[in-house]
Amino acid sequence: MSASSDIEEGTTLTPRYDANGLVTAVVTDAASGELLMVAHMNAEALAKTIASGEAWYFSRSRQALWKKGETSGHVQRVLELRIDCDQDAVWLRVAQEGAGACHTGRRSCFYRKVPLGQSGAVKLEFAEARVFDPDTVYRKP
Amino acid sequence: MSASSDIEEGTTLTPRYDANGLVTAVVTDAASGELLMVAHMNAEALAKTIASGEAWYFSRSRQALWKKGETSGHVQRVLELRIDCDQDAVWLRVAQEGAGACHTGRRSCFYRKVPLGQSGAVKLEFAEARVFDPDTVYRKP
Repeated sequence: MSASSDIEEGTTLTPRYDANGLVTAVVTDAASGELLMVAHMNAEALAKTIASGEAWYFSRSRQALWKKGETSGHVQRVLELRIDCDQDAVWLRVAQEGAGACHTGRRSCFYRKVPLGQSGAVKLEFAEARVFDPDTVYRKP
Repeated sequence: MSASSDIEEGTTLTPRYDANGLVTAVVTDAASGELLMVAHMNAEALAKTIASGEAWYFSRSRQALWKKGETSGHVQRVLELRIDCDQDAVWLRVAQEGAGACHTGRRSCFYRKVPLGQSGAVKLEFAEARVFDPDTVYRKP
């Protein structure tokens, strides 16, 4: 097989990390199918996720390895992990512990709709309310 | 509001494009909830998607605007578009026309599982079979 078909049709895990050493991680609720969040993983975060069955990510803003729930308690148990054709994105189907995944206090980070069928300026519509108080859960120093 | 809370709590669409001018686009099947693919959009692809209600992306490998289905006929009708807290990722809930979304011939790009609870080398497991012949659908010159 060519290198490209090895990546797409092979059984060897060979993540194609970007220039920053990251792959995209898409996280859905295994029960509802809802998209909870999009994050990034470096090789260490991916290895820890595979070994532990709990979600680890790499924070681009903090440039640090990060276990989901380490501050909030909102741990994600990974029920299934998949990788895409070109191995630059993974899909985590998780059981989300606690009220939600988003640091703003919503269950999902995708709490606003973009109206369709419009040109020019669009006004976002809130589709989800807060389910926890982020200032309490993520205690500010 | 601060700039940060405007982005997170406001109703103005202000995508935070990366250094390459792109946001991440997560595409799920509106009927089944299955993750179909992860792609990228530049400002033009996002504007065309919003205006037309059909999915447009930006191909990083070809450095070109791209309408999903323009070659394969596998158009994605966008039933709902959402944006995440920090406005660097969008979620498309689509009706996928044709057999599938993946250029390898599967319905989803995420057709391989990564087994959990292991350290070291892992062997991917195929979770989805081909549903169309990519050599026919994406005619090679």
